[in-house]
Amino acid sequence: MKPTMSMFDAIELGHQLDKGEYKKRERELHIGLLEQQRRLRESNSTLIIIVNGVEGSGKGQVVTQLNTWLDNRSVITKAYWEESDEERERPRLWRFWRDLPARGTTGIMFGSWYTGPILDRAFERITDPVFDTTLTEIVDLERVLSEDGAIIVKFWYHISAASQQARLERDRQHEGTVSPYLEQHASINPTFKRFSERAIRHTDQSFAPWHLIESEDPLYSNIATGEILLEALERRLDNEKAWTQHGKQKTRATGIHLPDTARSLLDRVDLTQKYSGQSYEGDLEALQRRAAELAWLARKRKINTVVVFEGWDVAGKGGAIRRLTHRIDARLYRVTSVAAPTDEEKARHYLWRFWRQVPRAGYISIYDRSWYGRVLVERVEGFASDKEWFRAYGEINSFEKQLTDFGTAVLKFWLHISPDEQLRRFREREKTPWKSHKITSEDWRNREKWEEYAHAVGDMVERTGNIDAPWFLIPANDKKLARLEILRIFCDQMQQHLETHASGAGR
Amino acid sequence: MKPTMSMFDAIELGHQLDKGEYKKRERELHIGLLEQQRRLRESNSTLIIIVNGVEGSGKGQVVTQLNTWLDNRSVITKAYWEESDEERERPRLWRFWRDLPARGTTGIMFGSWYTGPILDRAFERITDPVFDTTLTEIVDLERVLSEDGAIIVKFWYHISAASQQARLERDRQHEGTVSPYLEQHASINPTFKRFSERAIRHTDQSFAPWHLIESEDPLYSNIATGEILLEALERRLDNEKAWTQHGKQKTRATGIHLPDTARSLLDRVDLTQKYSGQSYEGDLEALQRRAAELAWLARKRKINTVVVFEGWDVAGKGGAIRRLTHRIDARLYRVTSVAAPTDEEKARHYLWRFWRQVPRAGYISIYDRSWYGRVLVERVEGFASDKEWFRAYGEINSFEKQLTDFGTAVLKFWLHISPDEQLRRFREREKTPWKSHKITSEDWRNREKWEEYAHAVGDMVERTGNIDAPWFLIPANDKKLARLEILRIFCDQMQQHLETHASGAGR
Repeated sequence: MKPTMSMFDAIELGHQLDKGEYKKRERELHIGLLEQQRRLRESNSTLIIIVNGVEGSGKGQVVTQLNTWLDNRSVITKAYWEESDEERERPRLWRFWRDLPARGTTGIMFGSWYTGPILDRAFERITDPVFDTTLTEIVDLERVLSEDGAIIVKFWYHISAASQQARLERDRQHEGTVSPYLEQHASINPTFKRFSERAIRHTDQSFAPWHLIESEDPLYSNIATGEILLEALERRLDNEKAWTQHGKQKTRATGIHLPDTARSLLDRVDLTQKYSGQSYEGDLEALQRRAAELAWLARKRKINTVVVFEGWDVAGKGGAIRRLTHRIDARLYRVTSVAAPTDEEKARHYLWRFWRQVPRAGYISIYDRSWYGRVLVERVEGFASDKEWFRAYGEINSFEKQLTDFGTAVLKFWLHISPDEQLRRFREREKTPWKSHKITSEDWRNREKWEEYAHAVGDMVERTGNIDAPWFLIPANDKKLARLEILRIFCDQMQQHLETHASGAGR
Repeated sequence: MKPTMSMFDAIELGHQLDKGEYKKRERELHIGLLEQQRRLRESNSTLIIIVNGVEGSGKGQVVTQLNTWLDNRSVITKAYWEESDEERERPRLWRFWRDLPARGTTGIMFGSWYTGPILDRAFERITDPVFDTTLTEIVDLERVLSEDGAIIVKFWYHISAASQQARLERDRQHEGTVSPYLEQHASINPTFKRFSERAIRHTDQSFAPWHLIESEDPLYSNIATGEILLEALERRLDNEKAWTQHGKQKTRATGIHLPDTARSLLDRVDLTQKYSGQSYEGDLEALQRRAAELAWLARKRKINTVVVFEGWDVAGKGGAIRRLTHRIDARLYRVTSVAAPTDEEKARHYLWRFWRQVPRAGYISIYDRSWYGRVLVERVEGFASDKEWFRAYGEINSFEKQLTDFGTAVLKFWLHISPDEQLRRFREREKTPWKSHKITSEDWRNREKWEEYAHAVGDMVERTGNIDAPWFLIPANDKKLARLEILRIFCDQMQQHLETHASGAGR
């Protein structure tokens, strides 16, 4: 399966809804939304719904649906196309300020303040730093509005590049129905995706979180939109006082969970795969030699590499790490096993221990478990509060961005096994004298929370996978396959990184 | 007097303390700081003191003093000079993360994460957008630490360019004592000041506010530092629970008030000045003709101008505006008198009404009172909560920055009169039938809060005066002088703006 190079990869799961289910959920939704809209009218808040996404993903259809569900006497929908003369002669945000809905009412911003900057960047009319500055201005705007009581709900609708192409082909069959936007966007799909992701990551704030919705199926994307909106409204209006006094919600931070969790990211990993080569030992040795050579080359070029291993208990992280490092010069790498923090570490921010360990240029740092513990075990076991683990996504992204900006290659592996395979390995270990100490009652307890962990893994990969620091989900029921796959990815990524990056040392 | 082109101009007030007063205040301070440090040790917080400022302002001396006052068993002082090899081979923030003090302890960061980026920008090693991106990273870092419980207190020590030069001369008398830093910094004083201001403005957040201290007199700057630190510690430790739960303080937002308010900015305005020319009418007409020409030129070049008039009641704002616009083509300007907001305006963010009025390119917008009401009348009369008016500085700076980034010229006048002169004019108006309606009981009430308003004006000018949108404090006891002065400044600024800016329309 392909690596999670972007948050969009992680949501291409083929969500759909059948008509019966749609009808049932729609009725409840409609009633719920009207009730919340009534409460909104009596409150001091404004609801701002932002509708953005890939061209051809049916954004217009969602806007129509929202207008059907909501009482449209207090809803204003604004579509933002190209700027008019009037608009070009004023600062960029003027037209959005002008259209600001009044307290108690709703504004649906179709296109919104995101479209312009993303397209400007994709078509290279602006550079990265200017793009980032614009995004920071948007964060400021949303903070200002939010502090003033606005409820900002941001939706991003996504379809795969293949679906976009298919829609374009279908439209072409019927002359005259092809939107020039669809033509244009389809031609730059990967670029558009890359900068959209950057925009989403940069502007995903607790006061204005993004919700990514897979919209291959309009029934699904409508219901997902409605349910997220309903939940956001209920939560904020229940807590309006707490919000206006402290700018924070009492209850848990808003995630970008999809309402239908039946399909999860991990289900996409094909666990039936097995090693099918002729000589495992031969294949292994060839890759290990290549890894050793690349490590020396990286040293020479002063480029750092960070490799993160996460995965289920007994998924084989330790074994995979030993195979990976087998032929690499011991002076060139360091394996860090992340256990419970020391007193010194507990006395500081949880990222401190990892910052401290950032090596000088030219080294490979391998982590057996890592900073992702914050959004996995600490989240599921309640060691971190909801607020703490939710903001950890941003903290981790910022940490890794500082590494990759510096020229470091960052790879992240999730070793996936099935619950059955885990059980088999647990039992096997218990029977093996020198391995039985490795299985504790904690491991059995973790097992009971499989679903919760799977959910946390999905969120983690979606929110922290990106082109510069991708996640690779490794099918690990077959150990040989997993070990070779990891070595192969390590070598390919490192080679690619060395080809595209100048020396990493010195900024 | 010179315009307030930067926040530094506004604090060059010549603060000093005599030795007796110093001794008295120091004793209390010392006891208070030790007590707060004891509470800190028992808390979950970390204290991070950031010491930055102009070279030659005696930062080292302050650090020494802090180490004398505080129990230095739980204080670590780190000075950040040039980066070492070790440091250059890692991301920029690594060395600061490494030095993070533990919970319950204090870290004094001398130099800190601000010095590098400001110098890089001043010496043109990086561009504006890269500088801004770095500043945003710093804001993120401080937010991350603050959310984790750190108390961040940031001090900026300022001396005037003349004092810096004088210190350099003095050091030169004694061979070998001249710091190469002082030499280097003195040579780029205006540039350094400009980018320091940009850094301070960009990073002045409620969770990590800046405190600007005039440090011409070491006795004063020591006491100011100690008192601000003590107040910040008391406030945060009293509210630790509220802070960690909501990331906000219960009590009023931290200002950057100087502890000694005896000298205020407005005291610097020389109100004894009178018009001393030969022909007031002749001078007036000449300036008015020039203003009219410049207005046409700006129209042709599609450049907007925004002129803000604020000032005491009966300081003569209306009269000055009539003189300013007298010969300008009526199609080229619009005067907006800002009264109480309408229902439509009340239903939205307070800046909405001003955003809405942003004109197309080529016009002059004159405001008789303005968005500054938020930090003047609304602050003093309690119409806005402490949190609301405090964050308005940032909101206003961001609003004006969007205007100036777009090419708009922004000028701001404060018309200053003495309390006696105000009283004389009040009485005169009461006696004049067609003017008596202009004096209301509200005016008399405002008069009683003169000191509070003066304080608010000082904060406003300090926090919102900058090179792109300067404040001009106009001595207005003599109306003729004030009117000519305003016209003269308007013409000079506009001319200068037209010379340095290309066409403003289209981005």
